[in-house]
Amino acid sequence: MSERSVIDWIRKRAPSFGNGVRIGIGDDCAVYTPQAGEELVFTTDFTIEGRHFTRDAYTPREVGYKALARGLSDIAAMAAAPRFALISLAVPDEEFIKPFFLGLFGLARKYNVTIAGGDLSQSDKVHCDIVVCGSVPKGKALLRSGVKPGDFLYVTGPLGVWKNRPIPRLDLSASLLKFAHAAMDITDGLSMDLDRLLIASSLSCEITAAPPIHRGATLEDAWHNGEDYELLVASPKLLTKPFHPIGIAVAGKPGSPLPPRGWDHFR
Amino acid sequence: MSERSVIDWIRKRAPSFGNGVRIGIGDDCAVYTPQAGEELVFTTDFTIEGRHFTRDAYTPREVGYKALARGLSDIAAMAAAPRFALISLAVPDEEFIKPFFLGLFGLARKYNVTIAGGDLSQSDKVHCDIVVCGSVPKGKALLRSGVKPGDFLYVTGPLGVWKNRPIPRLDLSASLLKFAHAAMDITDGLSMDLDRLLIASSLSCEITAAPPIHRGATLEDAWHNGEDYELLVASPKLLTKPFHPIGIAVAGKPGSPLPPRGWDHFR
Repeated sequence: MSERSVIDWIRKRAPSFGNGVRIGIGDDCAVYTPQAGEELVFTTDFTIEGRHFTRDAYTPREVGYKALARGLSDIAAMAAAPRFALISLAVPDEEFIKPFFLGLFGLARKYNVTIAGGDLSQSDKVHCDIVVCGSVPKGKALLRSGVKPGDFLYVTGPLGVWKNRPIPRLDLSASLLKFAHAAMDITDGLSMDLDRLLIASSLSCEITAAPPIHRGATLEDAWHNGEDYELLVASPKLLTKPFHPIGIAVAGKPGSPLPPRGWDHFR
Repeated sequence: MSERSVIDWIRKRAPSFGNGVRIGIGDDCAVYTPQAGEELVFTTDFTIEGRHFTRDAYTPREVGYKALARGLSDIAAMAAAPRFALISLAVPDEEFIKPFFLGLFGLARKYNVTIAGGDLSQSDKVHCDIVVCGSVPKGKALLRSGVKPGDFLYVTGPLGVWKNRPIPRLDLSASLLKFAHAAMDITDGLSMDLDRLLIASSLSCEITAAPPIHRGATLEDAWHNGEDYELLVASPKLLTKPFHPIGIAVAGKPGSPLPPRGWDHFR
């Protein structure tokens, strides 16, 4: 199978135009036409065999799904709406390619993500890198540094289990734009991500409640396991489900009072 | 060395704000504020150890330089100006990271490329994926499909040698915006890239002259070797240096009359 025939197969099946993308797959670059009043947010995530998934635990379809879901989760954490993605994929075996993209395209269609381009190559193990671009009204993107003293800290769902097909919380973007001061997605364990959020905002917090625990997980898992893909949100408002309060931001030594014990890629 | 300390090192040295990038490294996403009247172009390229470079032939600094240069060459091919890049890097050994980024940052400063974000991970071999975003006046991006019958076809410099430190032809963007109908960068061998350009424009061509040959290369190399990072340009105007005429676009069976024998990643 030649590179061109693989790319032709992808072009035929990818949702590859529209959504602001004027030129999609096939030229030296993709071309995106910004709308008046929008800001663009960009995230990039590796998904590497043996590091982020194993073939025992994931089907190629699930890898494609999750590679895109990881990026969409970051888009949700900015309270943005997804626009397009660029997919770079290196594989040892061509058989991996089609189911990978079918899993990815399914999720892309669900959330109206245009596949604007990418790169294909060969490698000893599967390496995928995805960039997702989202759109948010100018000045409204939720940053990690936006937490204010007195904000309630929430998580958006039960934590503690590793999910093969996580659901990015794009359903919450509209609420977050209205109510939140700051947000980030929980991917390296709540304890570590809470620490990062508070350091970015130069605040501490008081823990007021345990996070909701996913079926099959322990409280320990809920605090420290990674890969939840729920959001950690700071808001001055009292919010109801799916927002579960876990603490209140306060002045103090920046960071979490709970020792962070999550995932560090170089530790 | 922890992931955070690596990222801190990068943040201190990267040209990471400005150029439209309102929020750079360190949040869930980077935030870019588009200007009125601009379109954005995006390209993504893998640079993989054993595939795109070997450690015998390239220093880590050269790998960082070239990884970004490859993307900038695509930006030049659209007649765009670079804005920012996102860098994903997976390495087996931490020693690789700093010189890689120093090589990359040097080139980024030269062409005013903001480093807006990225991802770091571990892998058995070096895998780098870079996305570069460029800006071009709305509707003016040069596409592969823009060649018109009667256009002169040009290459922008001598071809045929593999370059460790290729110079992206961003110096030509202003001229191309004025004079060109279409452009692409020559990275898989002139014969293959000419074929692709003509197929995208549904045209054939007459070859009128041999391409200029790089010192140390043969005519065969100039036609078929990859990795030149010069541009292939179609223009109705008679252009002078550095534009070297090689042919004229004509109606006919789409593609090059010369058999393409360049680089195909899955052949």
